[in-house]
Amino acid sequence: MATIGVLGGGQLGRMLALAGYPLGLHFRFLDPAPEAPVEQLAERLAAGFEWSPALERFVRGLSLVTYEIENVPVELARNLEQRLEVYPPPAALEVSQERLKEKQFFRSLGVPTAPFAAVDTRQDLERAVADIGLPAVLKTRRFGYDGKGQVVLREAGDVDRAWETLGGRPLLLEGFVAFERELSQLAVRGRDGAVAFYPLVENHHRQGMLRLSLAPAPDVTERLQAQALDHARRLLEALDYIGVVAIELFQQGGQLIANEMAPRVHNSGHWTIEGAETSQFENHLRAVMDLPLGGTGMLAPCAMVNLIGTLPDRRAILEVPDAHLHLYGKTPRPGRKLGHVTLRAPTPGQLHERLERVHALLP
Amino acid sequence: MATIGVLGGGQLGRMLALAGYPLGLHFRFLDPAPEAPVEQLAERLAAGFEWSPALERFVRGLSLVTYEIENVPVELARNLEQRLEVYPPPAALEVSQERLKEKQFFRSLGVPTAPFAAVDTRQDLERAVADIGLPAVLKTRRFGYDGKGQVVLREAGDVDRAWETLGGRPLLLEGFVAFERELSQLAVRGRDGAVAFYPLVENHHRQGMLRLSLAPAPDVTERLQAQALDHARRLLEALDYIGVVAIELFQQGGQLIANEMAPRVHNSGHWTIEGAETSQFENHLRAVMDLPLGGTGMLAPCAMVNLIGTLPDRRAILEVPDAHLHLYGKTPRPGRKLGHVTLRAPTPGQLHERLERVHALLP
Repeated sequence: MATIGVLGGGQLGRMLALAGYPLGLHFRFLDPAPEAPVEQLAERLAAGFEWSPALERFVRGLSLVTYEIENVPVELARNLEQRLEVYPPPAALEVSQERLKEKQFFRSLGVPTAPFAAVDTRQDLERAVADIGLPAVLKTRRFGYDGKGQVVLREAGDVDRAWETLGGRPLLLEGFVAFERELSQLAVRGRDGAVAFYPLVENHHRQGMLRLSLAPAPDVTERLQAQALDHARRLLEALDYIGVVAIELFQQGGQLIANEMAPRVHNSGHWTIEGAETSQFENHLRAVMDLPLGGTGMLAPCAMVNLIGTLPDRRAILEVPDAHLHLYGKTPRPGRKLGHVTLRAPTPGQLHERLERVHALLP
Repeated sequence: MATIGVLGGGQLGRMLALAGYPLGLHFRFLDPAPEAPVEQLAERLAAGFEWSPALERFVRGLSLVTYEIENVPVELARNLEQRLEVYPPPAALEVSQERLKEKQFFRSLGVPTAPFAAVDTRQDLERAVADIGLPAVLKTRRFGYDGKGQVVLREAGDVDRAWETLGGRPLLLEGFVAFERELSQLAVRGRDGAVAFYPLVENHHRQGMLRLSLAPAPDVTERLQAQALDHARRLLEALDYIGVVAIELFQQGGQLIANEMAPRVHNSGHWTIEGAETSQFENHLRAVMDLPLGGTGMLAPCAMVNLIGTLPDRRAILEVPDAHLHLYGKTPRPGRKLGHVTLRAPTPGQLHERLERVHALLP
């Protein structure tokens, strides 16, 4: 039986394991955190992402390595690749960890992005503000997620404050996109080059964190969906990608603007557990294991609500028709993703009603 | 977080755990077998069902106890009940472990059964054969499953052989029911008395083992389904039942004849993982944890095929559209249930095609 090594042991890893056991897969996770959501249901080594005796133990006997966080050091991924297969390819990690490379990569594929400029010095920042105009967002190039490491500049006077907050690190100024909504495209590519795509999903963030996904995104024209698939297909091919990837997009009129990519299963794809023929977790595993991809058709309209910081009453959530609760086994703490609820409904109208019921139950 | 103790650590326990983790439940299993399908993904104590220091460790800190096999000693279940809640109620174990009690129980509820008579002596057997007529089946009263402990009597001359094979144990002679097909009714009852029912399923056995379930059972009239629900409801109420129960039924014309009950999640309910709004595993856990029951509506017509003895090619199975593979992590051995495949399809016609594809892949 194949044992898959997974870098990271959070909720994404937990849902990978839950999807993989029925396929006959075994799992070993590597995560340095004191508390790891996978711990309860799989082998976990509590060690960091540098080479160590623990890492040697982690690697021993594995069939391949994948990851469930994108902050895996690229060097580690490349070192592991000398010993065994690593999917998605480390090149995807490299691109997604550095916002400048990511934007340049999108641009090289002909995928539209917001205007952007590299910022290393105060002078760069001033020049970029002049070129791109305001409002704009100054971001660190590396390891930003959930809205951290970003400062919005609305007027010229904000340059000082922004530089004080973030200056000294490699930065990026991005033009503000007056988008109508945020969408994401999940795609998967197998080791044989087969590809499959989930429908576009509409995402709602608050304080930089995903709160709600609607699947399918309402009012998506065929043209818009085709655009998203075209972008995703280019990205998959260019990286010789294997596994699930998520591309976060802004919609502005009839155009999609790529914001960022995540080379892993993604929060905006959690609805696929109950809402699609095959979940993103199972399809990621099928892809990396060189098994045929599963169908990505939808079973019913879905909404996915993140449970952040504190948990609602479990009983009340489970009273909502066709509500599916997913708890991650984490200790509640402000701003922490503790679980999610997926709602399914026969019609968008009923979905909306159920969603209102769930929202009323959130603290 | 609640920890549920489960007696037995086979595939049913494994699927209970997979369904329970998203609800935030923890599991501890007790199973004396050298190899237990739950082991990979949950805590398992390798000890038997008699009181022992291991059993003390098993019980410590549990919220409640349930079971995934019906051969749990009733005395153990009753002893455990002195210390913590045990669901389904031990009375259900007692009834289902003894075919005579089971048949008498069905009869007391007004649920039709095959004609039957207790057989303790050779004389009893002769009298029973005279009363009931032949063909008939002589069965041990206790711990028979998957066709073991049964002898068919076709003519008077078979009495000797049957007595030689089984005589000396408490037995039961059952009249042969010339049934058209085998069905099963799965039902669930919560601690608040709420009940829910899955649709009638058609089951196909070979060599005493379930091979195929079709959900819903084709050509079920409203009257037949109503009959099944009525039987199930009486049984749930009479036992003050909590959890999932399966009732195996024979259909003879427009009538349902109860064959036996299993006070646990059941092989003929595996299709509910992909085919119903809420799986039998999740609903069993919701019931015993005093959580609201989940909907039992079907998402699509399903077929469930057991993988017995040897495994088919995993890749070929996963190439069948909307095929869902469930492996139990067991070493292949003749006659052993190693996994199952659930097929879903938009129409019964397509389901039939997919089923033929899967059957062609089985050894």
